[in-house]
This record gives sequence, C-alpha cells and structure tokens, in this order.
Amino acid sequence: MKPQPSTEKIMPQDYYALRRRKLVQKIKKRSLGAFLVSDETNVKYLTGFTGDSTYLIVGKDVEILVSDSRYTTQLQNECPRIESSIKSSSGATLQNVAAILNKLKLGSVGFESGTVNYALWASLQHTLKSTELIPHAGIVEDLRAIKDASEIKETREAIRLAEKAFALLKSGYVAEMTELRATYELESSIRRFGGKGNGFDPIVAVGANSALPHAPPTEDTLGSAPFFLVDWGAMTPAGYRSDLTRMIFTGRILPKLEKIYKVVLKAQGQAIRAIGPGVFCRKVDSVARGVIDKAGFGKNFGHGLGHGIGLDIHENPRMSFLSEMVLKPGMIVTVEPGIYLPGFGGVRIEDDVLVTKDGCEVLSHVPRQLEDAYL
Amino acid sequence: MKPQPSTEKIMPQDYYALRRRKLVQKIKKRSLGAFLVSDETNVKYLTGFTGDSTYLIVGKDVEILVSDSRYTTQLQNECPRIESSIKSSSGATLQNVAAILNKLKLGSVGFESGTVNYALWASLQHTLKSTELIPHAGIVEDLRAIKDASEIKETREAIRLAEKAFALLKSGYVAEMTELRATYELESSIRRFGGKGNGFDPIVAVGANSALPHAPPTEDTLGSAPFFLVDWGAMTPAGYRSDLTRMIFTGRILPKLEKIYKVVLKAQGQAIRAIGPGVFCRKVDSVARGVIDKAGFGKNFGHGLGHGIGLDIHENPRMSFLSEMVLKPGMIVTVEPGIYLPGFGGVRIEDDVLVTKDGCEVLSHVPRQLEDAYL
Repeated sequence: MKPQPSTEKIMPQDYYALRRRKLVQKIKKRSLGAFLVSDETNVKYLTGFTGDSTYLIVGKDVEILVSDSRYTTQLQNECPRIESSIKSSSGATLQNVAAILNKLKLGSVGFESGTVNYALWASLQHTLKSTELIPHAGIVEDLRAIKDASEIKETREAIRLAEKAFALLKSGYVAEMTELRATYELESSIRRFGGKGNGFDPIVAVGANSALPHAPPTEDTLGSAPFFLVDWGAMTPAGYRSDLTRMIFTGRILPKLEKIYKVVLKAQGQAIRAIGPGVFCRKVDSVARGVIDKAGFGKNFGHGLGHGIGLDIHENPRMSFLSEMVLKPGMIVTVEPGIYLPGFGGVRIEDDVLVTKDGCEVLSHVPRQLEDAYL
Repeated sequence: MKPQPSTEKIMPQDYYALRRRKLVQKIKKRSLGAFLVSDETNVKYLTGFTGDSTYLIVGKDVEILVSDSRYTTQLQNECPRIESSIKSSSGATLQNVAAILNKLKLGSVGFESGTVNYALWASLQHTLKSTELIPHAGIVEDLRAIKDASEIKETREAIRLAEKAFALLKSGYVAEMTELRATYELESSIRRFGGKGNGFDPIVAVGANSALPHAPPTEDTLGSAPFFLVDWGAMTPAGYRSDLTRMIFTGRILPKLEKIYKVVLKAQGQAIRAIGPGVFCRKVDSVARGVIDKAGFGKNFGHGLGHGIGLDIHENPRMSFLSEMVLKPGMIVTVEPGIYLPGFGGVRIEDDVLVTKDGCEVLSHVPRQLEDAYL
C-alpha cells in the first residue's frame, strides 16, 4: 500500500531538525554566519539533548554540539544525527567553542544575550579572532513560543496529569493536611500517573495566605480557614509543563469572597473570548483588567494576565499590559486573573489556552464555576 | 542569672547581617562604592529572602532590596531589618535599580559577572549616569564557600535526611522497581522525614547504566542487573543540600566490579585523609587520581573529585585538577572518585566532608566498605 503522507508520523529527530532549520532561516535574515545556543533548555528544544553544560553551534552549513566527556554516550544516544566535539573536562568546553568558531571563520555569530552571562561573553570575546559576537535575545524563545504538534500533545498530557492530581487532592481532602504536605501530595500523584513531577513549586495557600500571589507553602493546615487556593501544574517525562489555579471552598465562605470569585471568573471568561491570532497580548490583559477595574478591584490585581508555557513554566508570549507581543496559532498561554485582599484572601482562576487558526481552545477542563469550587 | 555568652543563640537575622558585613569588607578592599547582588541564591544567603526577581544593593552605608509588589509582604516578613524599594511590576525593577544607583552616586559598583546576563548588563550600563559597573565573579560565592555554624547544622540535617531515605530505599528493595520510581521514592522519604525534597535530580543507575557519570534515570528495573548506583541528596526546608553516592549489590557481582570498588574506596579514603586547611583542592584530587591511575583506571575517572555543597548543589570550592582553590575551615566538600567502564558499569563512592581547624570531619555515615554494599 502506498504510504499516506497525511498520516505519516513525524519522528522526534525530525521535529528537532525542523526547529533547527527554522532557526537557520532566522539567522540568515539577521545576516549572521551562525548562532551559538548556550541556554540549556534551548539546546534541548533544538536537539533533544537532556544534559547540561553543552553548547550548540548552528548555521547554514554547520551543526555542532560542544560538550565534555561526561556526555559522550548520552549525546550519541539522544542526538545521533548531530556532530559533536567533546573535551575531557567541562572547564575546556568554552575554549573549545572559541577554537571551533575561530576555525570556522563565520564572520558574525549571534549569541543568546538574555542567558549568556557577562563573564562568559567577555571570555569568548577575548578568545575569538576574526569572529564578531552579536547579542540577540529571544530568537530561540520566539520559535519556542509557537508549539508544534508534538508539543501541543505534550502540553495536553501535562494538563491531564495535573488535572488527575488535583482531583485526587480534592477528593482526598483532610482538614489536618498542611499546605506543604499538599504540594508533596500533588507531586506524588503526578508521578503515580506517569508524570515527571510538579511543573513548578506549587502554591497551596489557605485563607489569608492566598492574598500573596506567590505564597510560599506553610505548615498551616487546609482546614484552618474555609477556603484555599491551589496553583499547580505537572511536568511530562519530556519536560513540558501545565499551569492551573483553582479555589477550593471547604466551609462557608463570606459573601465578599463569592463576589470577588465571580468578578475573577468573569474577567477570565472575557479574556479567553478575546484570544485569537493577531490579537495583542496586552489587549487580552486589558480585557480582564477592565472587568476587575470596573468592579472596583483594579488595585488588587498586581500582576500580568498570563504567560506562555512549554519546556519552561514562564515562556513567551508574556500576557501583560507591558507586552508588545501578538498572539499566533500554536501559542499556549495561561489566563490567570486574580484579586488579592491583604489579610483577607485572594482568588485566582487559571487555565491553559491554545491559540488556534480561528480563535482558541481551552485545553484545561477542571470545572471553574462558583459552585464547582465547593468541596 | 547572668547570660552566658558562649551559649547565646545567634538569631537568623544576625547571621544575615554578619554575612552582609563580610561582603562590605570585601567591597571596601576592592574600592567599590557598592555591590549589586542579583543572583537569587546570593540574595537569599545575604538577606533570608526566599522569593525571586529581587536585587540587593549593599555598601558601607547602604542596604536596599529592590523588588516588585508581588513580594511586598514577603519582604516585610523575611527581611524586616532591610530597607526595600518596590515597584508595581517586575518589568520596572531593573530601571528602579538604575534609578537608585544614579541617585546614590556611588562611583563604581560591582556586579555579579558570572550570573548577570549580557542583555541585563548592557541595559544597566546604558541607563547608569555617573556610576561605573565593574565585573566581579564569585565574591558572594567565596563567602558562601565557608559555612557558618547555622549552615553546618543545616548540612548535617540534609545529610541525616538523605541517609534515612537511603536506608528506606535499601530496606524496601524490590527487583521490579524502576530507576525512575526509585528517585521518586527517595524524594517521598525525604519529605516524610521533614525535608523539602531531593537536593538535586538523583541518579539511580542499574548495571551498565552506571557507567554514565550523569546517568538519567530510566524505566529499567533495579533487578535487571546484580548492582546499581545511587547518587542522591536531600534539601532541608531552609534550602541546604547533601550529596552522597553508594553502590548497592543485589546479586552476585563480577570480581572485576569488586576490584574497581576497592580501588575507588581506597582513592576516596586517601583523598579524605589529605583534606585539611591550607591544602590545595587540586592536591586532594591528585591523591585520589594517583590511586586510580596506579590501578590502571586513570582514563576511566573523567570528572573532578568533588565540589562544595550548600544552598546550591555545586558550590565553591571545586575539587578538580584545574582548581586553584585552597581548603579552609568551614568548607564542606564532596569527595567522589569514580571508575566508569562503558558497557560494563561504574562505581562511585561519595561522602560529604567538613574542613576543620586541624583536618576534617566526614559528615556522612552510611557504611562504605565492600561488604556494606551488599543488600
């Protein structure tokens, strides 16, 4: 039977090669001879390599991973199609990068100015002969902002893992459990279901603790107030992450809390409806902010509306009022408005949303109506 | 009753203040007007602040934490004695740092060139008027290399947690458990005993997998070969880490493995005996390397002997043949020689050692003789 192109499976190595090809196009547009990828997650994204301390030099006619002997075998296993240059100690890697660049004589080479530290830059700068280092921030990060089919699948799985763990936490609620223990239980559950672990340090914040947007988990027990906030996510074995927030009401809550819940839910709903290709991220933020402002809580929503998720928990695009970014199909963003009343408590509702060709798809499915928050 | 100075408890805030005073001395020696601390762990070390996105400006007459409104309450709670300057969004923090530095007119200000990225440096450089930015790498890291009493106590606790988790893993051995699951079990146990979690991604590597010094855990089962390697550690709630490695023999191992075990153990023992104040780190490395070389396995020991541990899992001093560092009382280092035979397996034995005034103290107590490795 003739192979059917439309159902052919793209192999992982093909995804990596495709990403590097896209990077090469960006490099060409910027008239760079090559690009030096040093950020660990960017190297992973472009090659599949899961170790650290490894650089990728990529250009039109060049693809080399520069590493040390700890990773000889792992590089062969994970990146069989990419040439590698290995020195015996990790201390020699940077010099090796410079030696390779000097040998290749590529003219100008872009580097990741948002992650390369000053000392590393100065050292490279000092060692390079005819190669000029050009700072470029966010080139690979911009590629990463638009997820391919394999990444959307991974993100769906990260959400599924998080949702199963949340269901287990909720159904296993005991008043005596501490916030900290609850964060551990989430991770245990995610691992039980096949995930790598939490996607980030989760927030479990009871009562007034929830008024801190980034509340560190404490030894306070879940039953010490009639409500708590859970901001959690999962990481898949391949490293993709989800990020969700829900409130759980374990007792009788004050009308004020119900009120702000409804405002936040409305803000989130309107923001999600505003999401689609070509829309400015700050526009989506302003839709949510408008609802909260109008209800009189503008001052109590002190953070941006959301952010991209993927191999990192905070990725492009940034969904804030300061963002200049525009939504494109394939982006996956969190939508997480919140209202925080110091000393009283906070409400945040967060879902993960995929931008599609003609709008968006909410990837997360934990019910979010007021009545769903009750235990 | 008169207070007894020798038993007076030093309060946490005093430790932080003392560390900042030591930093100020280093700043003065370098004729800097102030120092800009941007590394998250360094900020934590100097102030006790456990959040992120926050800078510390410290000098003879100045101590300011620069952050955003997400952290207003947390800064008040965790750093009550340090002035803070807060802007409403994290995007404004860097500009705020520049504005404060411009206002203070400190002349030259040191920055952490090993962690400040190029783009951040360029942006600051651009915004500063009469202030010169001077790159300095490792100033705070050098302070951190020498642990104070509170840190030694924390490290002992991190080791205790790791040891209890290891005992549980060993006594609960089942042949069907996968490497990956074993790393999860270690973390669960550490948390059960009161720790924050693993001190780093642990390595559990069965049979030939152990020939990779940095083996990523797989779905191979512990019983799939007669031995496995466990490289694990714990993190205390305050963030201090331990780092240990042991072999576990679950079946009959080949004489060759016994042989390399004995060589590694001998190398470790001689290296530990060489540790003391005033000794070059590379000297200790060379003692271990000498034993392994002499036994004919020099080429199979492809990494440095060890590293400092503390708030990070890899800290100063580096115990490698390239290191120029000298051991001082209060340093806590790992001693972890290894021999790796591709396709066959590897042996590493690792303990945590405190440098004392007249030698050293091995802080970890998991038995390490050949017979102890058998289940």
